[in-house]
Amino acid sequence: MNTLFLPELREMLAENNAHDLEEFCTALNPARTAEFMEGLDPAESWRVLRHADLKLREQIFLYLVHEKQISVIESQDRAEVAELLADLPADDRVDLLHDVREEVVEEILPLLPADERRDLLKLREYPENTAGAMMTTEIAMLDEALTVREALTDLSHQAEHLETIYYIYVVDHDLHLRGVVSSRQLVSAIGKQQQRLGELMRSDLITVNALDDREEVTRKVAKYDLLAIPVVDAQRRLVGIITHDDVLDAFREEATEDAQQLAGVAPLTESYLKTDVFTLAWKRGIWLTILFVTASLTATALKVFEARLDEWPWLMLFVPMIMSSGGNSGNQSATLIITAMTTSDVKLSDWRRVLFREVLVGMMLGAVLAAFGLLLSWFMTRNHPVAHHHLLWPLVVPITLVIVVTSGAITGSLLPLMFKRLGLDPAMMSNPFVAGISDILGIVIYMTVSMTLLAKMTGKL
Amino acid sequence: MNTLFLPELREMLAENNAHDLEEFCTALNPARTAEFMEGLDPAESWRVLRHADLKLREQIFLYLVHEKQISVIESQDRAEVAELLADLPADDRVDLLHDVREEVVEEILPLLPADERRDLLKLREYPENTAGAMMTTEIAMLDEALTVREALTDLSHQAEHLETIYYIYVVDHDLHLRGVVSSRQLVSAIGKQQQRLGELMRSDLITVNALDDREEVTRKVAKYDLLAIPVVDAQRRLVGIITHDDVLDAFREEATEDAQQLAGVAPLTESYLKTDVFTLAWKRGIWLTILFVTASLTATALKVFEARLDEWPWLMLFVPMIMSSGGNSGNQSATLIITAMTTSDVKLSDWRRVLFREVLVGMMLGAVLAAFGLLLSWFMTRNHPVAHHHLLWPLVVPITLVIVVTSGAITGSLLPLMFKRLGLDPAMMSNPFVAGISDILGIVIYMTVSMTLLAKMTGKL
Repeated sequence: MNTLFLPELREMLAENNAHDLEEFCTALNPARTAEFMEGLDPAESWRVLRHADLKLREQIFLYLVHEKQISVIESQDRAEVAELLADLPADDRVDLLHDVREEVVEEILPLLPADERRDLLKLREYPENTAGAMMTTEIAMLDEALTVREALTDLSHQAEHLETIYYIYVVDHDLHLRGVVSSRQLVSAIGKQQQRLGELMRSDLITVNALDDREEVTRKVAKYDLLAIPVVDAQRRLVGIITHDDVLDAFREEATEDAQQLAGVAPLTESYLKTDVFTLAWKRGIWLTILFVTASLTATALKVFEARLDEWPWLMLFVPMIMSSGGNSGNQSATLIITAMTTSDVKLSDWRRVLFREVLVGMMLGAVLAAFGLLLSWFMTRNHPVAHHHLLWPLVVPITLVIVVTSGAITGSLLPLMFKRLGLDPAMMSNPFVAGISDILGIVIYMTVSMTLLAKMTGKL
Repeated sequence: MNTLFLPELREMLAENNAHDLEEFCTALNPARTAEFMEGLDPAESWRVLRHADLKLREQIFLYLVHEKQISVIESQDRAEVAELLADLPADDRVDLLHDVREEVVEEILPLLPADERRDLLKLREYPENTAGAMMTTEIAMLDEALTVREALTDLSHQAEHLETIYYIYVVDHDLHLRGVVSSRQLVSAIGKQQQRLGELMRSDLITVNALDDREEVTRKVAKYDLLAIPVVDAQRRLVGIITHDDVLDAFREEATEDAQQLAGVAPLTESYLKTDVFTLAWKRGIWLTILFVTASLTATALKVFEARLDEWPWLMLFVPMIMSSGGNSGNQSATLIITAMTTSDVKLSDWRRVLFREVLVGMMLGAVLAAFGLLLSWFMTRNHPVAHHHLLWPLVVPITLVIVVTSGAITGSLLPLMFKRLGLDPAMMSNPFVAGISDILGIVIYMTVSMTLLAKMTGKL
């Protein structure tokens, strides 16, 4: 926390020093101003912000930490808060009010201008994690019939109220999206002031539908290097845009969620330190219990082979090592395939190629581990009575490792593809299944290989 | 692959139909044009591209797949390729030539205009994954003494050659960065044409140093919601900018790298399907072998307790289950802490809070698994002769589970913080250590708990 200016700020507040407080609000980049206010409580923060003009107040407010924003909205004068909210970008307003207590929202709604209220109610209808929920409705939108000169004048009026003019969307009279001109094109065309937007615009546009998933949005923006992507409804009417900063935020959230899911944690909605321990225990407990149930199947499997393990007790020594090698190999494959699917490098139709590669890689990896396994099993059992009597027994662990590592790779790569095919989230489903299946497979393969080889061996002894 | 237009394209090439090929190049969004060309070989692609004007040719070329770009540069006429390269954004040019054979680069360099050549040689000096290696040197840069009117005129000349004019940077005569105006501000100020940039500009700027790490760039851009971030040298001279699309790409690469490292795969430099199987086997093999070596320590640990396991053979049944519970808990904690550190939610100084929370969560989770473990161990050993003779024995597995899950959580959360403290990459180092330590801890704790309880028990029998 940045507490550098905190004493001065508190002093200014105590003195009600309007001049200095105004100076503090205007001197710095709004993000920095917000940083310096971190130590203030919500009421103090609001008292400081009232010394900035509405535009600046809005900018600084957007950089405050989320909890403080909510707390300000819930605790401060409704009319003043409504004035601030009315001026925020539509997408930020929806996100904020989403976390505000419902009775406060009910009190604030009637105080918003009719346009903003209608907007808010409309945006609130879109399900979470859809393009509609991410978008803002403030768009630089111009009629295709305008000339460059008219467009520039029109735009200089709109610019003050807009979150962005990176792209200017060109629409017909029914707001159907027709094309786009960039601000760069417009500035470059200053010399040709009589040209119409309809001629200047590019009409082959990349768009998303309002009900498209958030992942579809990040995928398209990244693929086409867009600054902002227009959102259209089913009739191809322009309803909003999603800007690069929201895409980056969505992308970060997704990456964190995917990482958490891969580690068997139900995604946290808050940051780690802000999530209370009971929620944390719950989000981890669900998957830990599921993983425990699959792991307990290993006990059952071992129980099945108990009589044989009693006969060859040294076999037991290598069970954890073999299981974890299969699990690690499966985990590697699953993560590689899941990240490759996220970036669209691997598609469902590639499954044959994936399978072929994983079998190859699995056998190579298995062979390397087998070499180590051979050394290890010879070393660990060299004093056992059965040792050195037969050529076959030191091969039990190496042969098992090749098969286990390869089947781990196959399971780990095919399960995510299968879950994707079934319409399930591969990141969420794969981990417990890969772990469970490769654990059981590990024991069954080990026991089958050892029993086969040892039966031959005792037959020959 | 999009093969819809492939026959038509090939026909046009066979007929040398300049009119239709030109039409094809101009009709669509450049990204889409590139998609339709996916099926063509590099020589065919180049023949198509020659029908687009230089500006458009450049745009379409940038959307071709990387391998085809490299192959075109290496195989086609050097002078024509140099003409294209000279026109590309500086950062893309560097990235491309990075993968082109060195002898081809040597042949192309003399054909580039002096400015671009100097630029290229300068950019190539920055180490990979630094801000300098990500930036482009084409910047909208204006002198602070200009008026709004002069700036707009100047800018309309610059705009054609620039990758972006999202922000216009204001510099003094020595190119020291003084401030920034947005294109929005400039358009809004069209009415005040005599105002000087020095008055209009915002001077509290967020910048990165050319030698800063890529992660620092993505962190700042995400935190401050920037469209582009200026890169300065040690003397605070403006040397380049990094734009949002490069930040998004960097962010995606980092997220994929982190996920791969968490699963014990050395980060791939190419996408999954483009990485040949030997590279893949190598990148997985290193960590799989390290993990195997730590896992083989479990065999050693079991060997130490072999005599006692012979005495109580049912203990063996639960070894894999207990080990995997500790490992899963550690894996969850490690991932939570690593993702929280990536987004700066957890800092090194938070270690006490993290430890406290993990102990609490670990004990709660351990208690839940203990309940299942109690049922399971009672069920699995109900026919063993020793069962039901003493109250203590069914407690062995549950007590072990509580301790193992809690120590897994502690190990998993403290190791990443420790690696960070030592200046190592937590995502890379944590997984094998967490797995190794929690495996060994699992066995040692299990054996200690069981021996203590069983000794009491046999003493009383």
